[in-house]
Amino acid sequence: MSSSSSRSPELRRDSIFNRWVIFSPARSRRPSDFKSHSNPNPKNPNPSSCPFCIGHESECAPEIFRFPKGSSNWKVRVIENLYPALKRDEGIISDPERLDPKGCVVAGFGFHDVVIESTTHSVHLPDLSEAEVGEVVRAYKERILQLKRVGSVKYVQVFKNHGASAGASLTHSHSQMIGLPIVPPSVSSRLKSMKEYYDRTGKCGLCEALSKDILINKSTHFFSIVPFAATYPFEIWIVPRDHTSYFHDIDEEKVVDFGGLLKLMLLKMSSQLNDPPYNFMIHTAPFELPSDHLPCAHWFLQIVPQLGVTGGFEMGSGCYINPVFPEDAANILREVDCSQR
Amino acid sequence: MSSSSSRSPELRRDSIFNRWVIFSPARSRRPSDFKSHSNPNPKNPNPSSCPFCIGHESECAPEIFRFPKGSSNWKVRVIENLYPALKRDEGIISDPERLDPKGCVVAGFGFHDVVIESTTHSVHLPDLSEAEVGEVVRAYKERILQLKRVGSVKYVQVFKNHGASAGASLTHSHSQMIGLPIVPPSVSSRLKSMKEYYDRTGKCGLCEALSKDILINKSTHFFSIVPFAATYPFEIWIVPRDHTSYFHDIDEEKVVDFGGLLKLMLLKMSSQLNDPPYNFMIHTAPFELPSDHLPCAHWFLQIVPQLGVTGGFEMGSGCYINPVFPEDAANILREVDCSQR
Repeated sequence: MSSSSSRSPELRRDSIFNRWVIFSPARSRRPSDFKSHSNPNPKNPNPSSCPFCIGHESECAPEIFRFPKGSSNWKVRVIENLYPALKRDEGIISDPERLDPKGCVVAGFGFHDVVIESTTHSVHLPDLSEAEVGEVVRAYKERILQLKRVGSVKYVQVFKNHGASAGASLTHSHSQMIGLPIVPPSVSSRLKSMKEYYDRTGKCGLCEALSKDILINKSTHFFSIVPFAATYPFEIWIVPRDHTSYFHDIDEEKVVDFGGLLKLMLLKMSSQLNDPPYNFMIHTAPFELPSDHLPCAHWFLQIVPQLGVTGGFEMGSGCYINPVFPEDAANILREVDCSQR
Repeated sequence: MSSSSSRSPELRRDSIFNRWVIFSPARSRRPSDFKSHSNPNPKNPNPSSCPFCIGHESECAPEIFRFPKGSSNWKVRVIENLYPALKRDEGIISDPERLDPKGCVVAGFGFHDVVIESTTHSVHLPDLSEAEVGEVVRAYKERILQLKRVGSVKYVQVFKNHGASAGASLTHSHSQMIGLPIVPPSVSSRLKSMKEYYDRTGKCGLCEALSKDILINKSTHFFSIVPFAATYPFEIWIVPRDHTSYFHDIDEEKVVDFGGLLKLMLLKMSSQLNDPPYNFMIHTAPFELPSDHLPCAHWFLQIVPQLGVTGGFEMGSGCYINPVFPEDAANILREVDCSQR
């Protein structure tokens, strides 16, 4: 493995997010220095007070659906968020695109749901079997398809916060979905950047993203990489091998295959970085995508371990400083064997 | 003062950053809940080991300049960063805009400087007099003018990290400046968004940003507001009252006036939020600005107290959830009297 410290600093532009990242070996630490020092979610036994544990369903906000459907012995539940960021009452959209002179104001309509990933408090997502992680992935898909039928939802952000410093307020393993009445500018900007790459090269940037030095693992239908211009140290992307614009087009076979690779990546990250707090996000296309964007829009899942602090430079410039070259991070994640877990 | 909790959630689009923010009273807490619980920078007496303290100049990376020039009894020093993110050796730019097939790669050329704001370890920026804060502001200006003369520097990001959780690794009061060989896409995007506002309304978005309900304070040449679509709770902008594109065009009179308002805003934030960790960033124009952007590019300083955690939703969508309406935050900051400090 080549050492970061022998390299010169380099700026790389990510052609998906259109973001410059400074790879800075002068600020690099040894891989061991990136190990998280605090275990964000100690594996407590089930507390009596967790509303997400099986048997406490009545303490939660209303359920939307569960897998298996109708079973009291459920695996996954999708429920409303008790403290939603947006209101699901369509009545509040009296004038959804009302403009005021200073900018835009839209009524706070939308859906904010929680996906409870397991019945058991002490079980984290990568502790589940591949098929069980697949069930969680299938819950995302099912809920997105439901929200798609609500015409005023333009985009659904699926995300997971693991650990308090990654934004999780409850320790029971869960993820969240927010259905928005607008297409977020970051999503438009990502699609525009991917379109520019396509127009310049005739190819989809994510179909072309795989190279040997940044590959972590491949499954039948997906590959995982540390992206060429990773914003964060040890950031991981899981990408469909076949060009696909919409996450929600994932089929049953791919759901399980994807669940397996997601599990493996979370295990590897946890093993090599001492169970850090992390976020993951699904980056998909908005429901209404111009057809000329289909060849360049390719969904993926981004995993970001929380190993550092975002400071004023990043907030001000949108450029990030990453002390770990992606090739080195990929090597560290590639070499660990998690097959026994 | 109107209470957040009586309001419906609202999405507001910031026309400067082109960013949607969800204002969500269901997730709001009382203002007192935003008080920071940890003092990020306890006011230690001068430790023997701080290289930024007066008398330890030889332990620092090379000095660039000091105020007063040539005085051993300095007020402000600008030095090189001992662990720079970028290398100031122009020799490394053999091929500065080399493109590779997967994206862009640029040699890591640039300047990463530190502004030591005081000789004394226990003195934080708002503890200084208005004129002394002005000296710090003048140091930013002087260093930007120097970097402007290096043709390959396209943009200078001035920023301050206060407190470990805001990214500060040393407690002695300091700020940083990074001179970049590229214009960050966030800067281009901000200018584009301001241009769009100008093309739509015939006015500069920041010249128009002031309204009574979001005003905190005015000085002779500047005003401070909680912006209409503040990304973060209690975010503050300090804006020149006269339209000005470049921070580095600030004159001697305005330097002191700006220093006074910056001091006041930091005191107010510290007083109302219990000395939280914070970042501030100067948002100015790149050195090479197309002349048709001059009427819409207006520099400002953004102060962001670190009161919450950025989670997967924000990272994924670029939309932020802010539990405090700007009008309420402005009211809380307006009402505190810091005139005795």
